Amino acid sequence: MLSHHIVSAYDDELKSLTLRIAAMGGHAERMVDLALSALIHADLALARKVIADDAILDEAQREIDTQTISMITRRQPLADDLREIVGAIRISADLERVGDLGKNIAKRAFVVGHSLDRMSAIRGLEALVDLALTQLKDVLDVYASRSVERLVAVRDRDEQIDAIYTSLFRELLTYMMEDPRNITPCTHLLFCAKNIERIGDHATNIAETIYYIVTGEQLPLNRPKEDRSHVVTVEPHSPA
Amino acid sequence: MLSHHIVSAYDDELKSLTLRIAAMGGHAERMVDLALSALIHADLALARKVIADDAILDEAQREIDTQTISMITRRQPLADDLREIVGAIRISADLERVGDLGKNIAKRAFVVGHSLDRMSAIRGLEALVDLALTQLKDVLDVYASRSVERLVAVRDRDEQIDAIYTSLFRELLTYMMEDPRNITPCTHLLFCAKNIERIGDHATNIAETIYYIVTGEQLPLNRPKEDRSHVVTVEPHSPA
Repeated sequence: MLSHHIVSAYDDELKSLTLRIAAMGGHAERMVDLALSALIHADLALARKVIADDAILDEAQREIDTQTISMITRRQPLADDLREIVGAIRISADLERVGDLGKNIAKRAFVVGHSLDRMSAIRGLEALVDLALTQLKDVLDVYASRSVERLVAVRDRDEQIDAIYTSLFRELLTYMMEDPRNITPCTHLLFCAKNIERIGDHATNIAETIYYIVTGEQLPLNRPKEDRSHVVTVEPHSPA
Repeated sequence: MLSHHIVSAYDDELKSLTLRIAAMGGHAERMVDLALSALIHADLALARKVIADDAILDEAQREIDTQTISMITRRQPLADDLREIVGAIRISADLERVGDLGKNIAKRAFVVGHSLDRMSAIRGLEALVDLALTQLKDVLDVYASRSVERLVAVRDRDEQIDAIYTSLFRELLTYMMEDPRNITPCTHLLFCAKNIERIGDHATNIAETIYYIVTGEQLPLNRPKEDRSHVVTVEPHSPA
């Protein structure tokens, strides 16, 4: 029999793992939020901060990897706890990638500069980031609360993200056709939009992982189709 | 003491895991190769095949996840074998994502159509795919042979991929400025190029995982910087 002391130390380790994931999640959310702000306001000092902050997530992921491997080796966990530990490995990989995508948005602030001012596309980007961050925040709340029934809302929101992304894609192509000077900034905005859409996908991955941790089953939702931007075509026409 | 019988059954399980990863790798390589072919030749039947084939990788990843969790639970492996198992989880996630990226390229064949014929950009895309697939093939060979000293070449090639990607990015922007009819197809080609560059990144991830499996250490290579496309600007000028 394990003594109470050992069991409780194990629980503490699982709890510290959960807290680390939550901290990574909060950090990733902030990075994406600040990256968009840097992009919109051409705030290059802020962009530099976001770029530098990505190292914190990389380090956090490495620490979680080390901690989880050590826990499996020392504790030889059985099914439930093992799902918890393997789940933490997966979620931290998704969050690390969200940080990369945020950093990539921040980097584009240097090229897009002030060319954003006259574009309504920025409202589309803001709407996209709002949805993706709500998505991320919600799955992290479910990770803390284990209320997996709330994961259904995540799927519906992912469909909204895809719809906004596809319409933004079309809008940006139209701007590019109206004026060749828009081509460079709009191309970078297209990649920013794609990054945000990917952040929504990572939130969906995390939702699937949480469901697996809690139930041991695959999430019984049909994963929504990928966005429809790959079929978007816009034909040139004379500017209005 | 474990009987010889049990130990050997365990070795067989590890071997079957390694073979499954190798099979996933071969499948992912083929998907990317055929996706580019579908794109270049506007071969929509081939594109549909690539899109359908992605399900095989998704299923393979789920099977590997189930197998690995079951192995950890039943076998309670110690450090070396645990690295092997956790490594398999990571590599299969990278390969599944390579398949997604290949599928996304195939989907764009429907929009790009025959507009590729007159573009030299296609040579850039081919060069990019050649490098990324060589990269993937090489890391999968190292996975089979465990000759980790060969992983250094992987880093150098990733730098070449980034350089070609950045130059292709600039070239595609130039085409877009020359003729607004190029904007839609070139935008989709930009995303194809980005997908291929990401495949190179996944190969680098796999290289890092293999090094970790074999040595228990982080790969002592400075991960190359991300591509430089995020700083590319092209100014409009009168067509020649």
